[in-house]
Amino acid sequence: MKIVASITRILLAGACTTAALASYSAPTAAQDNPAARAAREWRQAREQPLVAEYLEFLSIPNVSRDKVNVRRNAEHLLKMMEKRGLNPRLLEVPGVSPAVYGEILVPGARRTYVFYAHYDGQPATQKDWATAPFEPVLRSARLDRGGQVVPLPAPGQRINPEWRIYARSAADDKSQIFAMLAALDALNVAGMKPRANLKFFFEGEEEIESEHLDKILAANKDLLKADLWIICDGTEHPSGQQTVTFGARGIQKLEITVYGALRDLHSGHYGNWAPNPAMMLAQLLASMKDADGRVLVESFYDGVLPLGELEKKAIADAPNSDASLMREFGLARVDGSGRRLAEMINLPSLNIRGMASGQTGSQAVNAIPSTATAAIDLRLVRGVTKEGQVARVIAHIRKQGYHVVDADPDEKTRLAHPRIAKVAVEAGGYNAVRAQMDLPAAQKLVAAARSVRSPVVLQPTSGGSVPLDMIIDILGTNTVQVAIANYDNNQHGANENLRMQNLWNGIELQAALLTMD
Amino acid sequence: MKIVASITRILLAGACTTAALASYSAPTAAQDNPAARAAREWRQAREQPLVAEYLEFLSIPNVSRDKVNVRRNAEHLLKMMEKRGLNPRLLEVPGVSPAVYGEILVPGARRTYVFYAHYDGQPATQKDWATAPFEPVLRSARLDRGGQVVPLPAPGQRINPEWRIYARSAADDKSQIFAMLAALDALNVAGMKPRANLKFFFEGEEEIESEHLDKILAANKDLLKADLWIICDGTEHPSGQQTVTFGARGIQKLEITVYGALRDLHSGHYGNWAPNPAMMLAQLLASMKDADGRVLVESFYDGVLPLGELEKKAIADAPNSDASLMREFGLARVDGSGRRLAEMINLPSLNIRGMASGQTGSQAVNAIPSTATAAIDLRLVRGVTKEGQVARVIAHIRKQGYHVVDADPDEKTRLAHPRIAKVAVEAGGYNAVRAQMDLPAAQKLVAAARSVRSPVVLQPTSGGSVPLDMIIDILGTNTVQVAIANYDNNQHGANENLRMQNLWNGIELQAALLTMD
Repeated sequence: MKIVASITRILLAGACTTAALASYSAPTAAQDNPAARAAREWRQAREQPLVAEYLEFLSIPNVSRDKVNVRRNAEHLLKMMEKRGLNPRLLEVPGVSPAVYGEILVPGARRTYVFYAHYDGQPATQKDWATAPFEPVLRSARLDRGGQVVPLPAPGQRINPEWRIYARSAADDKSQIFAMLAALDALNVAGMKPRANLKFFFEGEEEIESEHLDKILAANKDLLKADLWIICDGTEHPSGQQTVTFGARGIQKLEITVYGALRDLHSGHYGNWAPNPAMMLAQLLASMKDADGRVLVESFYDGVLPLGELEKKAIADAPNSDASLMREFGLARVDGSGRRLAEMINLPSLNIRGMASGQTGSQAVNAIPSTATAAIDLRLVRGVTKEGQVARVIAHIRKQGYHVVDADPDEKTRLAHPRIAKVAVEAGGYNAVRAQMDLPAAQKLVAAARSVRSPVVLQPTSGGSVPLDMIIDILGTNTVQVAIANYDNNQHGANENLRMQNLWNGIELQAALLTMD
Repeated sequence: MKIVASITRILLAGACTTAALASYSAPTAAQDNPAARAAREWRQAREQPLVAEYLEFLSIPNVSRDKVNVRRNAEHLLKMMEKRGLNPRLLEVPGVSPAVYGEILVPGARRTYVFYAHYDGQPATQKDWATAPFEPVLRSARLDRGGQVVPLPAPGQRINPEWRIYARSAADDKSQIFAMLAALDALNVAGMKPRANLKFFFEGEEEIESEHLDKILAANKDLLKADLWIICDGTEHPSGQQTVTFGARGIQKLEITVYGALRDLHSGHYGNWAPNPAMMLAQLLASMKDADGRVLVESFYDGVLPLGELEKKAIADAPNSDASLMREFGLARVDGSGRRLAEMINLPSLNIRGMASGQTGSQAVNAIPSTATAAIDLRLVRGVTKEGQVARVIAHIRKQGYHVVDADPDEKTRLAHPRIAKVAVEAGGYNAVRAQMDLPAAQKLVAAARSVRSPVVLQPTSGGSVPLDMIIDILGTNTVQVAIANYDNNQHGANENLRMQNLWNGIELQAALLTMD
């Protein structure tokens, strides 16, 4: 998903030096799950044609705003799904890239699962890529570790599992779609039948904030109802362990602007007399957090739904990479009064995304800036809403003596109020979701994943935010996220890639999930 | 001067709506000073050739870095000064635009005055100007009030005193040089002789921070010694009253950078755990000032040389335009606990020039920025030094728990210190100067000015900063600043201009100053 995805890009913007990397090689021991085992045997016998089919899929440009090519992907998907007997069709909203739907209905099935993935991709700037984003290539290793372009081996030959496929959407998120389709082939060859109703929902607008997902869901409510939506997207834990995530933080972005004089003023002539909005903003922001990062906005943590025993245990059991992350990030201290990162993710947050006033560096002039702005994101957890947190922040700003407005103040307003703050609340925020970990369908999914590869990292909440709330609200269902991509896949950035072994693991995982009862 | 100058540009970036403007028309009553009266009569008889000579001077490009043309100005000046019998010569430092020196030595004179001005100008971007910056024109009014280009009247005709000359350096600072030379002509015609030794020092590098002024002064120490350097530069009080300024604040710029992780981090995954340098900077800056703008850095005001009785009286007597400035700037409150702007200028200041971290607006991403920077200027008054104030600020930063460095920290340093601040102190700061108001030579100057036009605004200190300390330190002299340009002259910006009446007033003032004993 978009936001989960961008962490990888940010994480990998520099060299990777962590312990996490040292322990990266994922276990590939034989597993207990017969479907996964069948998928492995089937795949090992036909790696070359499998990859060839995947490269063909990746060669169709899929940048979300390029609707013509996105639709070519949808039509290609229809063919791939037709071949697997999924009775596919397009779910259309006029003028919008369609969702591609398919299904396997099992008479007498007790459960219905929707497998969600998205087939659109982030923009890709050709010049930043080592090879063209829509001319997929294999490399012998990670590009920044000397990986060279290698040809696809001849049919019948095995492919080095450390090789990587480089292309836009190789990881995010065509890999999950392809893993499902390959797993269906394997099951078919092995004569294994699904036991639940399986529905496939492949979105074509995920990378542009799922602009019309709500409409598509609302128009197909009955079709898309399910015991569980399995959100197949994202990046596995840096430890290389399989990762199942039960929820996602919500997000609400806002921007605060405070005002000095109507225009920049000479700092010699008016400094320390005309108020400096950069200092005002600094004081306002400083009032929002203590030195240890605790948010001081009144009631900010009120109503947070506490973690249950299962969730606390999941956090305790998850690999703790805090110390290695601190080393990797060059940090001698972190916020949170000693609490683990995994705990902090289950609290609402207030983060300054950016701050701007006047100029710095060689552009700086001896002036009092006329405005100062901070871009902020509020992350939400269950029990606090986007509207609620915004209201708390605005109340806090008022308490600091500010007159709060939602547009640049006119002269009259300026002359009437000693301190003015504009709070611009960005459209498109969404609330947090968190499925109960003891939900039967979710438990089935965890058991299936564990039977493929163990241990499985269970996360009550992902740090990133994804708009799962609309799926839950419109359809009255639950969601659980399953990731297969290597954590260093560069998704959203240049040179996005998928490690071969991650694709193989993904096919085995999907075989197990597709045969849950 | 450069910094004094830029205020005008900033001041006029928007529309002028002040009461200051309403009272703008300068008084032109007949004055008591015979030299000034002679200058007026002389000028009224020959406005056309006078302006023609000035336009010729203005047509020689004088952008400081354009040394070839700057030297053409110097040579032109030599000729103009030769004509006035000033025995001119160039004061050279190899490879540098020269200072142009001239003198009238009066046998038996008891005092020596150096008249300082500069003949170089700020860069001028042709496309921003209504007419070419070095093709001077007359306009019938201020450009932004519909002023049209008008031809120079025929010889013998008078020129409307509200007309303006548009050209680079029309105000800053060729106007002062030309006013002196015209006044000398007038005195000559009237048979009036100087009574003190007069020396003229016209600098060619003022707009590039007087890069080599110290060398020129040091190489000509004996020649340039004087009872008083009369710094002829700057902009008169917005009230249109004559303005004499006894000192200037010093300035020291610095930049503070605080550090988060080695690279931007995803705010969902690491927000509220990885420290946010924008918040750290906000907290650090907020610790430096209270809500009323008082600087909280320990000892920040210690040692400030108190104002004397004369200086307090001067401030009390000066026109108080605080309320109209607040209206003009759209400010409902100002810092300073009710003190007047004119008082605040006599205190050291700490001003945030700019603040930058991550991105705001449409460029904002959901990340924790890796650094945050604030550009700061410290204004200095007599009794506090640039080194001293920087040391106080650094001590304050340390007291907030920061390890202070002067270059970006390496990984080892980052891992060793929980909070790191880089303090980059900019080269080229200078200390404050303030001549005593009861200095006999200064008193003579004030009396002369008053005899020309009254009242005269006396400012103990200018808000802006100018490097007068090197003149005082190297030559052991005193400086007093005299301004003639209209406050709305756009100096440093596009469409720099000089109001005709201000040139006429300047000639009269200079006639009075040139005949001081």
